[in-house]
Amino acid sequence: MKILVVGLGLMGGAYCYNLSKLDKYEVYGVDVNYRAIDYAIEHKYIIDGDTSPEVFIPNMDVIILAIYPQAILHFLENYRDLFNEGQIITDISGVKSSFLNKAKKLALPADYCSSHPMAGREKVGIEYSEKVVFKEANYLVVPLDDTKEESIKVISKIGIDLGFKNVTTMNMDSHDNMIAYTSQLAHAIAVALVNSDTNENTEKYIGDSYRDLTRIAMINENLWSELFLENKDFLIKHIEEFENQLNLVKDAISNNDKDSLKKYFIESTRIRKGMEKDGTKN
Amino acid sequence: MKILVVGLGLMGGAYCYNLSKLDKYEVYGVDVNYRAIDYAIEHKYIIDGDTSPEVFIPNMDVIILAIYPQAILHFLENYRDLFNEGQIITDISGVKSSFLNKAKKLALPADYCSSHPMAGREKVGIEYSEKVVFKEANYLVVPLDDTKEESIKVISKIGIDLGFKNVTTMNMDSHDNMIAYTSQLAHAIAVALVNSDTNENTEKYIGDSYRDLTRIAMINENLWSELFLENKDFLIKHIEEFENQLNLVKDAISNNDKDSLKKYFIESTRIRKGMEKDGTKN
Repeated sequence: MKILVVGLGLMGGAYCYNLSKLDKYEVYGVDVNYRAIDYAIEHKYIIDGDTSPEVFIPNMDVIILAIYPQAILHFLENYRDLFNEGQIITDISGVKSSFLNKAKKLALPADYCSSHPMAGREKVGIEYSEKVVFKEANYLVVPLDDTKEESIKVISKIGIDLGFKNVTTMNMDSHDNMIAYTSQLAHAIAVALVNSDTNENTEKYIGDSYRDLTRIAMINENLWSELFLENKDFLIKHIEEFENQLNLVKDAISNNDKDSLKKYFIESTRIRKGMEKDGTKN
Repeated sequence: MKILVVGLGLMGGAYCYNLSKLDKYEVYGVDVNYRAIDYAIEHKYIIDGDTSPEVFIPNMDVIILAIYPQAILHFLENYRDLFNEGQIITDISGVKSSFLNKAKKLALPADYCSSHPMAGREKVGIEYSEKVVFKEANYLVVPLDDTKEESIKVISKIGIDLGFKNVTTMNMDSHDNMIAYTSQLAHAIAVALVNSDTNENTEKYIGDSYRDLTRIAMINENLWSELFLENKDFLIKHIEEFENQLNLVKDAISNNDKDSLKKYFIESTRIRKGMEKDGTKN
């Protein structure tokens, strides 16, 4: 199976690195940056690469777009006429509805099946690709209404072959609603917490809880500002639901209402224990 | 040096376990629970223990109160007349001003020097004490206005001997202001985030970022409701500062203001990188 990965950054590189180890995949790469292409060829992540996708597109079985949402739209528009019916196109973007609703209108000849690998690192660049860990993570397959069953299987199999623990299929809106909560809201909170620091020398006094909570405040501003705005409506809804819960805690403190505080803590403990990776409710 | 640890729970047990390994300390223990005392004696965490502290108190050099803030006050009141001038009393509570301002009025014969080991686990009980990790953590020494220099040295040395990475001295108000931000606010946020979950099967779709952010939502409701209320004023101030920052993010999203979002992300990244454990600004 011939695969073209478009965008040899951290995640695109991690796809190439992991898929090229399997005999069944022939992996090619496209990037605007020659240095990334050279790196991928030298490290045997790809068989061949170029800054122009034209030479590769017509011969590929699967095209994986590992670029930002807005860039995905441009790519699909620019190369629309080079795609063909036997191909599957996927993207690995963290938000879906906004650009996929526009992509639908392009009536692409190829079959489109979106996907979302829920893994990554704070680092940027293909040099860190080998350190991206997929094995404990979730991989979401997000078909359009008219995506073929066979394409869903192929894109799911790529997730399994990459080593993801859970491979799940869901529709666009469910995906964007869920990801606004589990990912974008989490990042918004971490950013706001770090930016509300009014103490001096905080780093001398923090424990692991604060470190864990704020690690994702180290954030790629170009990617995440785009992700936030592309998923605006769901994200604002979840920020407001979170604010409501925080206000309950604040009101309980103001009112010296220990019983309510305990109730909120018991509830959060119960819910969060149900989310442990190993599935035990310890 | 003879040390009495009052309260053989997770942290009290961890103190006994680590200090008893050093020849210079003779460690004794008090708890309301015979099972915890038996466990501590059997595992050689303490030389001897009892449910009544009366037999131990007069002969001790240092008394470490590893019990909840309200229980500390009761203990100091109940056993006030057994303390003597040569002794140092410390506590390991996560909040200080509220109960220490009351403790001051007891005019204890012993010298008081508070302390705060910034380490712990979500678990409860002495059975988990050996798993508490001190070596990468901060240890804060919080003297009263009239604490003797010598007592500050002794309590600091205990932190060093327990293996803490940083031992720092600070006053009560600075401590409570700082801890409201780095610890209690972090826990309030984690609780509110988990409790605002309106999705189904969230556990199937979360990544490491959400897991890291919410681990501390698994919280001991008795201890933390007391910590929150004991540090009420500082905590509400920091919740409001955090809400202000989150509203800036929310407004930028509402207004499609990508430049402001990027500015907030660049700022949070800069601040948080300065807090990495290894001190590198990577």
